[in-house]
Amino acid sequence: MERHFDEELNELYTYLLKMASMVQEAISRSIESLKNNDRKMAEDLINSDAEIDELEILIDDKCVDLIARYQPVAKDLRFIATAMKINAELERIADLAVDIAQRVLELVDKPLLKPLIDIPKLSVIAQRMVSDSIEAFIKRDTDLAKRVLASDSEADKLRNYIADELVRDYMSVDPKTVDRGIPLLLIARHLERICDHTTNIAEDVIYMVEGKIVKHKHLY
Amino acid sequence: MERHFDEELNELYTYLLKMASMVQEAISRSIESLKNNDRKMAEDLINSDAEIDELEILIDDKCVDLIARYQPVAKDLRFIATAMKINAELERIADLAVDIAQRVLELVDKPLLKPLIDIPKLSVIAQRMVSDSIEAFIKRDTDLAKRVLASDSEADKLRNYIADELVRDYMSVDPKTVDRGIPLLLIARHLERICDHTTNIAEDVIYMVEGKIVKHKHLY
Repeated sequence: MERHFDEELNELYTYLLKMASMVQEAISRSIESLKNNDRKMAEDLINSDAEIDELEILIDDKCVDLIARYQPVAKDLRFIATAMKINAELERIADLAVDIAQRVLELVDKPLLKPLIDIPKLSVIAQRMVSDSIEAFIKRDTDLAKRVLASDSEADKLRNYIADELVRDYMSVDPKTVDRGIPLLLIARHLERICDHTTNIAEDVIYMVEGKIVKHKHLY
Repeated sequence: MERHFDEELNELYTYLLKMASMVQEAISRSIESLKNNDRKMAEDLINSDAEIDELEILIDDKCVDLIARYQPVAKDLRFIATAMKINAELERIADLAVDIAQRVLELVDKPLLKPLIDIPKLSVIAQRMVSDSIEAFIKRDTDLAKRVLASDSEADKLRNYIADELVRDYMSVDPKTVDRGIPLLLIARHLERICDHTTNIAEDVIYMVEGKIVKHKHLY
């Protein structure tokens, strides 16, 4: 029975890693569609979100099923409960990639307001935080989880920089830029919120391993 | 044992209702602080979020503890698993009330851009959706859950109306209004995202009761 449970836990890992990789792919494609002004890529991304929703349900059912059949306690139960929470975070991240794609559709017929440098940079940070937070969970690595929390201030700073620049140098100077500036500003916020979800995952990992409540917003 | 489990489930209800009422209160106070230009109220709200975070952890631990001690299966297990998901949604809603309060702090020293009518209206819808979604969960009432899903299009429309008006009548006309328009636009988005979280709760309720996956975005 014990070995079988471990096998099924491994299956759960596999699903979660698949989910994480689909989510990273979604972030990456949303920013590609922005950079390339690619309506079809943005639309495809929006339509493909249903697959991620299905995987979320599958993982959730798997967790409930594991609890029902093996009735794990203590560490194993807490691990599965955490997997359910992380699964929900990943699905929310995918929704934010869809939000980005929707902003891209608002921008796609308009000339680009400015060269895109910082938004792609922020998306790279976001993708790294997704993979680090999932790795921290699977390896029960609280040091890595803490590094994810520490990265969040970098993401916050970059988001603020992007927003300030858009307001100060474009929208506050030339009102004709407002309808192109706001979607970019929102994309920066969507990315930063993706980072926030990865810090939720990191907090869950630390609580699972150390039993300590970390609300990093009050620490950094 | 059976009766004891029911008693503990009732305790779980009580906690969740307490959480829901704190969350509604947070939404209401965030909008009050906006209407009254009240810096202290906004700051107090931001500081009091820690209490909601603590209650989230308490509910989460209670759920894991119930599963570990009673090893419920089938319906009861699914109910507790759903409670954990809903708990996380409520905490995210409280975070959005904090986001609103942060926007209020950005606005508090500046003259009001326009009389506030539609944002308070949207906040009333959001609060109703919070209480309806929690009631749907506790009563296992899928009809009420479906009404929550149906309300979301009303919230979306009002959010779009608010955003369009801010861009069209203010920010696109007079660039001096941009730094006051953007926080208002974001507050409308925060409120609409609160509504989205209540539809997540409603979807979870329908899945719990009917085993049907409802992703309302594709239905309405």
